[in-house]
Amino acid sequence: MKKSFPKKILVVHGPNLNKLGKRNPSLYGNVSLKKLNLLLKKTAALQKCLVIPFQSNSEGRLVDKIQIYSHTVQGILINPAAYTHTSVALRDALLDLSIPIVEVHMTNIYRREPFRRHSLTADAVSGQIVGFGVDSYVYGLNALLNMI
Amino acid sequence: MKKSFPKKILVVHGPNLNKLGKRNPSLYGNVSLKKLNLLLKKTAALQKCLVIPFQSNSEGRLVDKIQIYSHTVQGILINPAAYTHTSVALRDALLDLSIPIVEVHMTNIYRREPFRRHSLTADAVSGQIVGFGVDSYVYGLNALLNMI
Amino acid sequence: MKKSFPKKILVVHGPNLNKLGKRNPSLYGNVSLKKLNLLLKKTAALQKCLVIPFQSNSEGRLVDKIQIYSHTVQGILINPAAYTHTSVALRDALLDLSIPIVEVHMTNIYRREPFRRHSLTADAVSGQIVGFGVDSYVYGLNALLNMI
Amino acid sequence: MKKSFPKKILVVHGPNLNKLGKRNPSLYGNVSLKKLNLLLKKTAALQKCLVIPFQSNSEGRLVDKIQIYSHTVQGILINPAAYTHTSVALRDALLDLSIPIVEVHMTNIYRREPFRRHSLTADAVSGQIVGFGVDSYVYGLNALLNMI
Amino acid sequence: MKKSFPKKILVVHGPNLNKLGKRNPSLYGNVSLKKLNLLLKKTAALQKCLVIPFQSNSEGRLVDKIQIYSHTVQGILINPAAYTHTSVALRDALLDLSIPIVEVHMTNIYRREPFRRHSLTADAVSGQIVGFGVDSYVYGLNALLNMI
Amino acid sequence: MKKSFPKKILVVHGPNLNKLGKRNPSLYGNVSLKKLNLLLKKTAALQKCLVIPFQSNSEGRLVDKIQIYSHTVQGILINPAAYTHTSVALRDALLDLSIPIVEVHMTNIYRREPFRRHSLTADAVSGQIVGFGVDSYVYGLNALLNMI
Amino acid sequence: MKKSFPKKILVVHGPNLNKLGKRNPSLYGNVSLKKLNLLLKKTAALQKCLVIPFQSNSEGRLVDKIQIYSHTVQGILINPAAYTHTSVALRDALLDLSIPIVEVHMTNIYRREPFRRHSLTADAVSGQIVGFGVDSYVYGLNALLNMI
Amino acid sequence: MKKSFPKKILVVHGPNLNKLGKRNPSLYGNVSLKKLNLLLKKTAALQKCLVIPFQSNSEGRLVDKIQIYSHTVQGILINPAAYTHTSVALRDALLDLSIPIVEVHMTNIYRREPFRRHSLTADAVSGQIVGFGVDSYVYGLNALLNMI
Amino acid sequence: MKKSFPKKILVVHGPNLNKLGKRNPSLYGNVSLKKLNLLLKKTAALQKCLVIPFQSNSEGRLVDKIQIYSHTVQGILINPAAYTHTSVALRDALLDLSIPIVEVHMTNIYRREPFRRHSLTADAVSGQIVGFGVDSYVYGLNALLNMI
Amino acid sequence: MKKSFPKKILVVHGPNLNKLGKRNPSLYGNVSLKKLNLLLKKTAALQKCLVIPFQSNSEGRLVDKIQIYSHTVQGILINPAAYTHTSVALRDALLDLSIPIVEVHMTNIYRREPFRRHSLTADAVSGQIVGFGVDSYVYGLNALLNMI
Amino acid sequence: MKKSFPKKILVVHGPNLNKLGKRNPSLYGNVSLKKLNLLLKKTAALQKCLVIPFQSNSEGRLVDKIQIYSHTVQGILINPAAYTHTSVALRDALLDLSIPIVEVHMTNIYRREPFRRHSLTADAVSGQIVGFGVDSYVYGLNALLNMI
Amino acid sequence: MKKSFPKKILVVHGPNLNKLGKRNPSLYGNVSLKKLNLLLKKTAALQKCLVIPFQSNSEGRLVDKIQIYSHTVQGILINPAAYTHTSVALRDALLDLSIPIVEVHMTNIYRREPFRRHSLTADAVSGQIVGFGVDSYVYGLNALLNMI
Repeated sequence: MKKSFPKKILVVHGPNLNKLGKRNPSLYGNVSLKKLNLLLKKTAALQKCLVIPFQSNSEGRLVDKIQIYSHTVQGILINPAAYTHTSVALRDALLDLSIPIVEVHMTNIYRREPFRRHSLTADAVSGQIVGFGVDSYVYGLNALLNMI
Repeated sequence: MKKSFPKKILVVHGPNLNKLGKRNPSLYGNVSLKKLNLLLKKTAALQKCLVIPFQSNSEGRLVDKIQIYSHTVQGILINPAAYTHTSVALRDALLDLSIPIVEVHMTNIYRREPFRRHSLTADAVSGQIVGFGVDSYVYGLNALLNMI
Repeated sequence: MKKSFPKKILVVHGPNLNKLGKRNPSLYGNVSLKKLNLLLKKTAALQKCLVIPFQSNSEGRLVDKIQIYSHTVQGILINPAAYTHTSVALRDALLDLSIPIVEVHMTNIYRREPFRRHSLTADAVSGQIVGFGVDSYVYGLNALLNMI
Repeated sequence: MKKSFPKKILVVHGPNLNKLGKRNPSLYGNVSLKKLNLLLKKTAALQKCLVIPFQSNSEGRLVDKIQIYSHTVQGILINPAAYTHTSVALRDALLDLSIPIVEVHMTNIYRREPFRRHSLTADAVSGQIVGFGVDSYVYGLNALLNMI
Repeated sequence: MKKSFPKKILVVHGPNLNKLGKRNPSLYGNVSLKKLNLLLKKTAALQKCLVIPFQSNSEGRLVDKIQIYSHTVQGILINPAAYTHTSVALRDALLDLSIPIVEVHMTNIYRREPFRRHSLTADAVSGQIVGFGVDSYVYGLNALLNMI
Repeated sequence: MKKSFPKKILVVHGPNLNKLGKRNPSLYGNVSLKKLNLLLKKTAALQKCLVIPFQSNSEGRLVDKIQIYSHTVQGILINPAAYTHTSVALRDALLDLSIPIVEVHMTNIYRREPFRRHSLTADAVSGQIVGFGVDSYVYGLNALLNMI
Repeated sequence: MKKSFPKKILVVHGPNLNKLGKRNPSLYGNVSLKKLNLLLKKTAALQKCLVIPFQSNSEGRLVDKIQIYSHTVQGILINPAAYTHTSVALRDALLDLSIPIVEVHMTNIYRREPFRRHSLTADAVSGQIVGFGVDSYVYGLNALLNMI
Repeated sequence: MKKSFPKKILVVHGPNLNKLGKRNPSLYGNVSLKKLNLLLKKTAALQKCLVIPFQSNSEGRLVDKIQIYSHTVQGILINPAAYTHTSVALRDALLDLSIPIVEVHMTNIYRREPFRRHSLTADAVSGQIVGFGVDSYVYGLNALLNMI
Repeated sequence: MKKSFPKKILVVHGPNLNKLGKRNPSLYGNVSLKKLNLLLKKTAALQKCLVIPFQSNSEGRLVDKIQIYSHTVQGILINPAAYTHTSVALRDALLDLSIPIVEVHMTNIYRREPFRRHSLTADAVSGQIVGFGVDSYVYGLNALLNMI
Repeated sequence: MKKSFPKKILVVHGPNLNKLGKRNPSLYGNVSLKKLNLLLKKTAALQKCLVIPFQSNSEGRLVDKIQIYSHTVQGILINPAAYTHTSVALRDALLDLSIPIVEVHMTNIYRREPFRRHSLTADAVSGQIVGFGVDSYVYGLNALLNMI
Repeated sequence: MKKSFPKKILVVHGPNLNKLGKRNPSLYGNVSLKKLNLLLKKTAALQKCLVIPFQSNSEGRLVDKIQIYSHTVQGILINPAAYTHTSVALRDALLDLSIPIVEVHMTNIYRREPFRRHSLTADAVSGQIVGFGVDSYVYGLNALLNMI
Repeated sequence: MKKSFPKKILVVHGPNLNKLGKRNPSLYGNVSLKKLNLLLKKTAALQKCLVIPFQSNSEGRLVDKIQIYSHTVQGILINPAAYTHTSVALRDALLDLSIPIVEVHMTNIYRREPFRRHSLTADAVSGQIVGFGVDSYVYGLNALLNMI
């Protein structure tokens, strides 16, 4: 049934995002990752687009998944979480792609620890949306759909 | 007639944005500031919101305007342009407010000169949207409307 | 009537100080700029000195005013606010003068963001008084009167 | 049988610690990881506590394991080894927890390469014990048991 | 009458240059801005070029003026003074132009305070002439005329 | 007789201030420490306050004295001199107190060697007064009396 | 049949190298990883040496593999790719070995982004060969064979 | 009676630790230095070891005491407090010794001001224990006893 | 015949300038050093000044030549090329002179690699002219003639 | 006879390499420069290539030689030794060439003093080979021959 | 008897120098401080000069002593040891003097830890002699006698 | 006749020292290099030592000379002047030697420009003597004679 949609988007969640809803709710809200993915799927379905969500705590497996889907999807929505600030491997995987990529962060990372202000991935993506909680994903998805 | 809308948003354009459409089109596109403001007005009107656009090349007049409207509007959409990186005065003006503020940039500032990667205003705003050209404004306006 | 005083002092208030009393009262107190100026005028009048207060959010207009009054007044009391940390133009305007200048800050700027710890104007003034709220101005005015 | 103990502690060993005993013995001693874990188990058993040891060379799997056990154990004893200095993901996983965590290092990391002097995890833990070889673990375990 | 000249050059003087002749004469000489402008007008007239001088202490008004004249003049001679070191707005205004621009400084800025050694505008201009007092302007004007 | 005053203030002079009057008079003036203390005593006595002056070249003894008087006096006036820039011990001693503290410097320390621009004590005090010579002390004393 | 060779060399390919031939061909050429490995096997076979190639996007699995083969092979040829610049774990794994190691890079990493100029592994290896495309591997393999 | 113990340990407390129990109890707890020393004496006595406690606010006297006891005791337990970060003299005194030394801190110094993260003494000691309050001393004493 | 001119100027060309005309023409133009020297000689002759050109790739020989001519010429025109950024010896040789010196660069060095933005010689010269190609020399020569 | 070879390569040895064999043998081996050059000549002769070796302690003469041979040879093999880290002149000379250049170092410069880790020439060459002693030259020569 | 000498020199030994002869003999030799002082006294006596030696581990007492003798002696020979790198108080005490001062170090401090390469006192003294062991003092004493 | 002395010392003078006596006399005195060499020869002759003086403005020739004499002399007295701060080649030449080397400077280099505070040669020499003018050489020569 998935194949019936003409468009596909890979949604990549970085480390610790599987704890969403349970992890520091005052900072990240109480929507679970499962619910967030459902919300994204519904939003995309309205535009005949299939969302393929993936979460991993492993830098290597995130790179694996991006490589595998790079020729199947028309865009990538990514919240690299902690790897935003440390992963050259992820940066290289994204730099190799020619499809549009949007980076999102739930919190305003520019208000947190100094090392969170530096993003290795930011200059490998088309645009960046930060600080709107779960809505960062929704806005990012819509922005991506507009670009495809 | 302006008063008939229940919501009002101040849209602040920083220095050199009055040249939009004529200024480096390969980087900033060819939509003029006038057309951009019209687009934002229409978008907001759909949600019964009035957009009050303002542009200035002067740091002081941008601060003046923000102070004047701070009790009249329900949110601020701002592209501080060059002042993003140099103006503590603008930062202080924004830090004093309790209404939601969204910062937008048309280009992906993280791909340009190193000094453009540091934003003095970023930690004074709710969220930031960068890299989507004219659409950065539209997404930012919608994000703001959701927060009001 | 102003001319009847033998001494004159220019009091310069930098950006956002027009919001005094309304701006972050837990940090800046609740005395308005109008009341502060009145207090300074009264204090100076006791020593037969006229206080000429001026506030602007514009770096250029602050420089203009300092140039205009530089040959009319016997001293300058200045709270450069945000421009303390970013304005070489203000620094140059002050460095050109030979009358005494006292810099004041209401808050202890050394307890705030790191960039507030560096003052471009500090080495262009005679002395600096920080951290006593509205009293910083009063102490600064008296110090200035002692120097004239 | 494990369940018969009222207390449980997760012991996390970072990359290359599986080579303990064989790896640079003049620096790390010649006790193998297996023997070290046995020693910790015996020490904990005296206080009716079960030790659950885990080692991995993968940042992602270390994060996985910490997430899985975070609601089952009463404390974590961790030697993040190389990830001490590079893993924001591990830092985030630890920051999300509310149980006591003790960080240990066998060598005095402050005597080695400059980059080993900076610990990303140190401010996510209760305390830190460095430089006592295998005993760093034993002291850390006892400290943890005192805190539970 | 101005229109009778086939060539036009905008001469931009930054903050505090209106005090020329009175300001620190041992450093800046005792030629007034008025006299300097007259000298430049005469020099340019010999080559059938009209000089349009402008001075302001306001960053915003300098940007305004450059924008307004950018399509009317064939070249810009600029002494950004203090804004050389702090104004990204001025830099952006100059970067947008395709006419030749020459930057001049009366003093050898590389012999003064460390922050004066860094010029934000230097890489937005064709060439730079520093250290010859009033003659820096004359040399710069001639260089500009050669390029038109 | 000392006890007859309802208020007490400890005045702490850091290293080399015992040479006041003899030490570099063009920089520090020619009032001796003895005379300065007398002046402060008289000034305080007008407000029924006893001044307890103390000078030492030893970091440790300055800390000792602050600890001893911390429960006896209502405020501290301190010129930490050289220890301003190097003493974490003095900083810790001051941070532990809940009475008002005013830091003074006779010279404008922001005009001297770069290392003098950084004060370890500045964020442990209520306010700071610099650059007025002996008057820095008098202004500081009055500011302190106003706070008690 | 593998065992019939008296010498064995582990060839380690870091993240994204599995995309060789497809990844940015103008930078990395169009030889696939499979072909590269075949080339290395043939080259080694001439000297009665078996090449054991391994690629992974995961830092942890690269460390695992190096540990497993450290006692079976006589040398390691490694292109750590992105992990060159971020992996202390890989550095530690290599530092523990006493067999010769040669590090290779296809591109001249000193001509790329500043962070690529710093190699965490460089001082854990015998020698380094950079900038010769696929030939970097061949030269590195021959250098390694000379050292065994 | 002291001499009857076969082992002796010098316990060195740095500046402001004489205020223990009264100093910032939320950070340092409410055990006084006297009680802490008693606790350490009792703990050591169980292993037939005499504890010789010493506190001073003076860097020089701490160095004096360490020199005096360096040939009499079998180990040193030290909390250098503020001098951890500023004293090369203390570092030199400790580097000269060949007996075991353990450094302890009551608070997790890696969670406090940036300058507290750098320890001049850390690489002059055998091991370091931080963040366990009064227990840091007890654990450190036991670690020291194990090394003698 | 050289002696018949009342004025003499030494023109110093630094390393690689002997390749002028052949070296990177898009950056340095296609005028050869021989032609440039001829042009300078003709320009100077109009003002009865003899130009003595000298080029060397050797730092030491450039210093030699400056020392030899320092008492014979009335001014020096120098393009230190690569030695601008690395030679303290050249700086010292120039600092010892009391005749006017003008530094020129053909390209706008502030637009090139970061290390080219720092000039060791700039504060040893009267003025600096950069970015006008061969004309930088001509303008510099005229500026020098005006100063003699 | 030299001319009978169709290919020519310039081999450039930087400062102190004339002492090879006598200089620190544990670091640089005991092959003399003469023998090394003979080895390179023989290796090249096998591929009908003439090696032209040159050594100098003078930065200027190294630049001279490179300029002279730049149109005669088909490639350059260079060990810039100490000038790797300090010579912009050498960098400029190499940047001007369009023939292949290979940089070699006998020792692993990344294991030595920090300033040796920065190479000014590295981004002016095709590739770099470090750490194989005399073999670095041989591998570099072969790599160069493959590129011609 | 001391008074019979026409010249007097204060010899100041910083912290830990009282351990000379016993402290790290491979670094500092095995001459005791007592013997060193005797040697200096004899050397000075030949030139009718009295040497007044003083050692303290306390920064404050070193400052005290320098102040006390500053009007009695004709020169100061000082080895500030650890305080070389941390004491602004000592620097200030020396800067206040107008008699010649020579700074000596037994070891070559430029070969040790990086922080030992920075001397706060070096620019407060006439000259500096480092690296000759006990002879550094003798040479320094003779240099001082030549200056008096 | 030179050979009749049993000891020989090479005295190396760096760039611009040939101008001694004429160069900035207020800084370097008015003794010429010729006179200085004569003084050193006489001083050495008293101890049956021959002084071989050499001066050059060329880094390469200084290295040449040191290499040539390294097996003929028993010690080197060197004032590297400007090359102190920039020459790794000189540093390498000195590091290769096993005879004693003393570095001297006439001025107190720690009181001059910041870049003069860093010496590349200081850790390649036995000792350093700075700030005594011509006497720095005399003291250095005597120190060297004591070491041979």
